[in-house]
Amino acid sequence: MEAFVSLVTNDSYALGAIALGRSLRNTGTWKKLALLITNQVSQDMRCRLERQWDELVLVEQLDSEDSEHLALLTRPELGVTFSKIHAWRLTQYSKCVFLDADTIVLQNVDELFDREELSAAPDIGWPDCFNSGVFVFEPSLSTFRGLMDLARQRGSFDGGDQGLLNVYWSDWPTKDIKYHLPFIYNVTPNITYGYAPAYERFGHNIKIIHFIGPNKPWQHHYVPEVDSVILFPGTYASEHGAQDYIRRWWQLYIEAEQIGQSDFMEIADAKNRQVESVRARRRSSRINHQTNFEHGHIDFNGRDSFENIQAHIEKMMNSN
Amino acid sequence: MEAFVSLVTNDSYALGAIALGRSLRNTGTWKKLALLITNQVSQDMRCRLERQWDELVLVEQLDSEDSEHLALLTRPELGVTFSKIHAWRLTQYSKCVFLDADTIVLQNVDELFDREELSAAPDIGWPDCFNSGVFVFEPSLSTFRGLMDLARQRGSFDGGDQGLLNVYWSDWPTKDIKYHLPFIYNVTPNITYGYAPAYERFGHNIKIIHFIGPNKPWQHHYVPEVDSVILFPGTYASEHGAQDYIRRWWQLYIEAEQIGQSDFMEIADAKNRQVESVRARRRSSRINHQTNFEHGHIDFNGRDSFENIQAHIEKMMNSN
Repeated sequence: MEAFVSLVTNDSYALGAIALGRSLRNTGTWKKLALLITNQVSQDMRCRLERQWDELVLVEQLDSEDSEHLALLTRPELGVTFSKIHAWRLTQYSKCVFLDADTIVLQNVDELFDREELSAAPDIGWPDCFNSGVFVFEPSLSTFRGLMDLARQRGSFDGGDQGLLNVYWSDWPTKDIKYHLPFIYNVTPNITYGYAPAYERFGHNIKIIHFIGPNKPWQHHYVPEVDSVILFPGTYASEHGAQDYIRRWWQLYIEAEQIGQSDFMEIADAKNRQVESVRARRRSSRINHQTNFEHGHIDFNGRDSFENIQAHIEKMMNSN
Repeated sequence: MEAFVSLVTNDSYALGAIALGRSLRNTGTWKKLALLITNQVSQDMRCRLERQWDELVLVEQLDSEDSEHLALLTRPELGVTFSKIHAWRLTQYSKCVFLDADTIVLQNVDELFDREELSAAPDIGWPDCFNSGVFVFEPSLSTFRGLMDLARQRGSFDGGDQGLLNVYWSDWPTKDIKYHLPFIYNVTPNITYGYAPAYERFGHNIKIIHFIGPNKPWQHHYVPEVDSVILFPGTYASEHGAQDYIRRWWQLYIEAEQIGQSDFMEIADAKNRQVESVRARRRSSRINHQTNFEHGHIDFNGRDSFENIQAHIEKMMNSN
């Protein structure tokens, strides 16, 4: 038996897992979908996650508590990604594909199960390391213990799971090309530098999008009426279709919640009210942004927008 | 016989080749240094280049004239990099390592000659493509003709040499890991996203720095008196020691010109005058930036600074 596996350590990333689970189902895969959760995930959220995932596995939260290295990444929250190590305990599965909760799958990727442990794609920030957001692995208690020992003895050079896994599989950059997943399995478009002609040439092959960095798709605002995304203020996401992928994320999320139950009507109502309030405010503005709004070219930079989006996120996380 | 090879198509990149040649010599290599030049390179500059390189080879300028694809890169000047194809005509050498003129070598890299054609490091913008700024190749008229035919028939998907070479060696991403040079042979630090903990952990291994992007080291200003770099306005180079590498570039450049002949005194005099004029202007400023200046924390944002730097570049290119 084989499975796609992900991990959520709080209710925010759980929103990601809802869209990810939906995106996997949409590819027509028959693999199991197994989601590791920690006790930080609320009961309400667990119910919502169970509608998309075959199995929720409660695991103990592991934290590197390595603030020094995490400061280098400016991502103090990543210490809990050590909980990912628990994935190796899923020995009911012979092989798994791990996907971070901030990924979505655009096309069927069952062929990944033909790969061996540990297969992963390069991290674009230092491509002799693999990015640990997508990888093929083989559950094993022995490997689990090995990783735990390494974590205890040497920690992680980035304070998160990626540093740990790259040390454990330190021969990845030189061992065999078969362990190198093509970049199309872990494309990270929301980063400033990209080789635009390659996106133009190979972009249609992209199978998995990984929204790395601190701003996640669920932190942006989506207006379903016009199928448009309003980017979180200060986000750089104009290149390589990142905005289109964020929109795709929202479509998947909404589809998941619709299929789940009638919750969506509530979310849609809340959204409609929000859209109406945005519109009313804009109507009162001296400059008429209506045309831009209709075309989705909306860019909120003010303090109000931030509050709107925050409120929106809180509303989403509280809804069930 | 084996050689390091580079290419310059104008007097601006020639400045890069001066520093690159010097950096190679400093590693103690016994390989030949062969530089392809086009007739856009001035006679004066050729004399300066000959002091660093064993052989200057005049080649016909080839241009992709593919403004559409180059627009994607926002780098219209890259069409002439097609001239790089001429490197395969250097059949007096059995094997070569090509280095773009905007690279410098920090440690001996003779071990690259143990690699086979075509070995290269991934491009961080799309790592299933190799970056064509550093690669191992074997001169051959047959390969030269093959590349020329491909260029004529299909052009390049990026309008430059990288797109062309990646199509010709399209099996690079999957063929064999031995063709993948470690990232330390082509590190591109002057780009916004970097995996900081990896730079921290592996940075001391870096052997070749590649200053990709439109702003080259010679466009920044260097103050030799305080061994400090004044970045070109708007440059993002604060991370991963990019500023240190730009300073290293300048040290190499100045060393090259010193070794060359007494020209350096002239450059140094001009520089001293420039520094004095900057200081005089700053003294008259209401805010005393003296301390910052002494520590190299100078950030010119005004129109004057741009003019200063432009004048400085022109002066350098005209000096001989």
